[in-house]
Amino acid sequence: MNIEWIGKLQDLIGEERVNTSEGDLFRHSRDESFHEPVQPDTVVFPESTQMVRDIVEFAGENKLPITAYGAGSGLDGAAIPVSKGISMNFEWMKDVISFNPDDLSITVQPGITRLELNHEINRQGLYFPIDPGADASIGGMTATNASGTTAVRYGSMRDQILNLEVVLADGRVINTGSSAKKSSSGYHLNGLFTGSEGTLGIITQITLKLHGIPEHAVAARCTFDTPKHCAAAAQAVLASGIPVLRMELVDAPSIRQVNAYGDYRFPEEHSLFFEFAGTQTSTEEEAVFVEELMQDMGCRNWERASGSKERAEIWKARHELSYAFRHIKGTEVMGSDVCVPLSKLAGMVDFARSEIEACGLLGSVFGHVGDGNFHTIIVYDPAIPEEKAAAEKINEQLILKAIEAGGTCTGEHGVGLGKMKYQRMEHGEAVDVMRSFKQLLDPEGLLNPGKIFD
Amino acid sequence: MNIEWIGKLQDLIGEERVNTSEGDLFRHSRDESFHEPVQPDTVVFPESTQMVRDIVEFAGENKLPITAYGAGSGLDGAAIPVSKGISMNFEWMKDVISFNPDDLSITVQPGITRLELNHEINRQGLYFPIDPGADASIGGMTATNASGTTAVRYGSMRDQILNLEVVLADGRVINTGSSAKKSSSGYHLNGLFTGSEGTLGIITQITLKLHGIPEHAVAARCTFDTPKHCAAAAQAVLASGIPVLRMELVDAPSIRQVNAYGDYRFPEEHSLFFEFAGTQTSTEEEAVFVEELMQDMGCRNWERASGSKERAEIWKARHELSYAFRHIKGTEVMGSDVCVPLSKLAGMVDFARSEIEACGLLGSVFGHVGDGNFHTIIVYDPAIPEEKAAAEKINEQLILKAIEAGGTCTGEHGVGLGKMKYQRMEHGEAVDVMRSFKQLLDPEGLLNPGKIFD
Ligand SMILES: Cc1cc2nc3c(=O)[nH]c(=O)nc-3n(C[C@H](O)[C@H](O)[C@H](O)COP(=O)(O)OP(=O)(O)OC[C@H]3O[C@@H](n4cnc5c(N)ncnc54)[C@H](O)[C@@H]3O)c2cc1C
Ligand SMILES: Cc1cc2nc3c(=O)[nH]c(=O)nc-3n(C[C@H](O)[C@H](O)[C@H](O)COP(=O)(O)OP(=O)(O)OC[C@H]3O[C@@H](n4cnc5c(N)ncnc54)[C@H](O)[C@@H]3O)c2cc1C
Repeated sequence: MNIEWIGKLQDLIGEERVNTSEGDLFRHSRDESFHEPVQPDTVVFPESTQMVRDIVEFAGENKLPITAYGAGSGLDGAAIPVSKGISMNFEWMKDVISFNPDDLSITVQPGITRLELNHEINRQGLYFPIDPGADASIGGMTATNASGTTAVRYGSMRDQILNLEVVLADGRVINTGSSAKKSSSGYHLNGLFTGSEGTLGIITQITLKLHGIPEHAVAARCTFDTPKHCAAAAQAVLASGIPVLRMELVDAPSIRQVNAYGDYRFPEEHSLFFEFAGTQTSTEEEAVFVEELMQDMGCRNWERASGSKERAEIWKARHELSYAFRHIKGTEVMGSDVCVPLSKLAGMVDFARSEIEACGLLGSVFGHVGDGNFHTIIVYDPAIPEEKAAAEKINEQLILKAIEAGGTCTGEHGVGLGKMKYQRMEHGEAVDVMRSFKQLLDPEGLLNPGKIFD
Repeated sequence: MNIEWIGKLQDLIGEERVNTSEGDLFRHSRDESFHEPVQPDTVVFPESTQMVRDIVEFAGENKLPITAYGAGSGLDGAAIPVSKGISMNFEWMKDVISFNPDDLSITVQPGITRLELNHEINRQGLYFPIDPGADASIGGMTATNASGTTAVRYGSMRDQILNLEVVLADGRVINTGSSAKKSSSGYHLNGLFTGSEGTLGIITQITLKLHGIPEHAVAARCTFDTPKHCAAAAQAVLASGIPVLRMELVDAPSIRQVNAYGDYRFPEEHSLFFEFAGTQTSTEEEAVFVEELMQDMGCRNWERASGSKERAEIWKARHELSYAFRHIKGTEVMGSDVCVPLSKLAGMVDFARSEIEACGLLGSVFGHVGDGNFHTIIVYDPAIPEEKAAAEKINEQLILKAIEAGGTCTGEHGVGLGKMKYQRMEHGEAVDVMRSFKQLLDPEGLLNPGKIFD
């Protein structure tokens, strides 16, 4: 393909930064979701805010869509350039702009991944705890308001953002916050741009809160008869006020799959995984308290891991869960990501588990139950349309039930392509307000078109 | 005064809910700031969302300004109806709509105050910890993104909001969030409406996160040679990762004033006040750890208070601080509310203290140093213009320095009237984006006109 504007774009920012190789077009056509890939016309690799701005202005003049691309680990197609045009990759924008340990903050470019970021800061005794399973980019995590296993203590990405530098569709560059820990000045733009999935502006710098690495940590796990029991137990822990660092539900089929995939030997029952962290005394006290509480609630197989190797094994297994299902030959997977008020969680996971059983497909129920957020992964054979339809039906039912319960269709993955059709049901007339903000900031609809709104 | 529309408004919502008594007009002409009072034409007391909507639509048709009024405890004039029109008071909207202890959440109408709210929930072992000194309304606290002494652990109001019901200028009623603890669905409107000071919509319901009352608490205080030492010590506590519940700087002149006002006997030196809370073991451990750290840094007069009466005394004194200065006959006070990155705090409080000394006026430096947020109160004689000018000059210098340091002109009080002129300096072109949101949602400029933007 040789589109005239690609040559002009190469003249503007340099040939080496505008790529149309088959490999790059393919890589940027998809993310980790099951959505249909669409190739962009070209992939650009900007190196600075100014260059992002030049590209955005060029795209504005030529009416070209721009879809930002982080690490492509998204689970709902948000990074797929459904209207083609430009895919903007941030691999060449990974700089640490300023690291301020005394302020417990850091300013980075969006391309840096969470592991790379931690590598820069861990030796100062600090860490950035938000961990979606994948090694996502900080830009992508900001744009989806990602969270993961530690949100039960630290909140989600939005809670970590002090400031964003954003290039708007008309080329203006704004800062949405400041370096102060809190502020009541002006409207809160940080929160609005976080989670906007590249539809309101391109994020070119992110100032994050950092946290001290806890002095001591203990992991533990136990099992219950049903996923419902696990969820009820998780709720009891929250109600006790113990500030767990992590608390994850992993159902029996998931444990079986992980054991087989990674050669682990976890008891193949519905499980809760915990991590406690803080000072030595408080951590040990919390672990003992929660153990007693779990025993009272009828848990089995309580086992704790204090050594860093054993702890790492537990969380490695937890993070491999999704891959354990994704790597079954000849199959595809479909996931869900609902989040409900805590009191509704047990009923929801119960419903999810029984529907999966009833449809006969292999499937998993697991998640960040301390936030009321859980996932399903349903494995289907793409050659058998009924299987895909059955998986879709379960996920849809979960979403409808979650919204009815006052919850949300997506706790952490974002709207992307799959959750667009539930926006009106979840947000009602607020969708019109959201859409009017989009219209205001991007009247030509060039920033990640075809996302969030139908 | 007898304006024709007032009669119509009385017909619409009932005579008893539309008040033009001298007393009510006076009360709604001012808040706790030094700004010039302005009386509204009338004060309305709606009893339901529908009634708020009726009033808003009536105001729209008749082009009448509406300024929401909570408890009138604001410190920057945000509730003053500078363009007259309607002042909307929420004293008749104090209902608990639904209390969900299992979800750690509650939905309330905006008129309920924080003490009334805690009264409803404390017996369930839960509390709502955000505490601006005053017994402010939850609606006003949401509208200003208030915080106070516990923000160092729990964050500010914005961090507590799950959902808001908002009546927009055109009468639409939207929900800005859901009851889920976290969400990546749609744009984050919760954050945008929180802190918008009644300029984007009228908040008619608020769904808040609640927290378990800690099992054990210990208060403590100590003194240092200078406010700068206090700030540096506070920073060391934060860096240690100890999750203090409260950590407040109170400088020597403030202690003197409080001692005299409330008949206390605190050592009249620059002080840090602490509160630790959690399980018995962890709290005691934290208190001991911080005591050692403070001793290492050269503190004097370390004293701890575990009894609930002694603890209450410390915080009562802290909360009376502001009144101790406000109640000096024949004087007025002017305050500031800057918030800076933690590493800049010691230099800032030092600067504030020396400028106050230099100008010769009575004045106080104190604040929520765990957030980098502190206040000044400068006492002046309104009959002597030079004194007011000197106070204004110091506050202005503080704001300029704070913004230069990457901080904000207001950490928790809001923009109101006094911080409007610093919006462009702090937010740059982002102000235009904010203003365009205002223009979009309130094209006639009827919601709290004359605020936030010049
Ligand atoms: C195995 C596995 C487990 C996962 N577990 C979790 C989990 O526990 N919690 C969780 O939250 N997520 C999880 N995810 C999903 C995924 O990791 C997150 O959604 C992540 O935030 C995506 O980041 P990314 O860099 O890969 O972004 P991408 O997928 O590349 O893009 C995501 C969105 O961000 C936008 N974007 C990227 N960069 C920018 C920028 N600079 N400016 C503006 N917009 C931008 C894109 O346009 C797109 O809309 C998981 C994924 C996998 C594969
Ligand atoms: C002694 C003292 C100490 C204080 N200490 C602190 C402190 O530590 N931290 C802190 O943050 N603040 C503090 N404050 C300031 C004040 O208490 C807060 O700003 C508080 O949030 C104001 O709430 P209010 O109900 O009094 O609101 P008001 O002053 O009545 O109004 C404030 C703003 O909120 C808007 N508003 C009110 N209700 C609604 C509604 N339903 N919908 C939309 N807009 C609405 C008003 O229009 C106005 O713009 C202190 C005040 C005093 C007097």
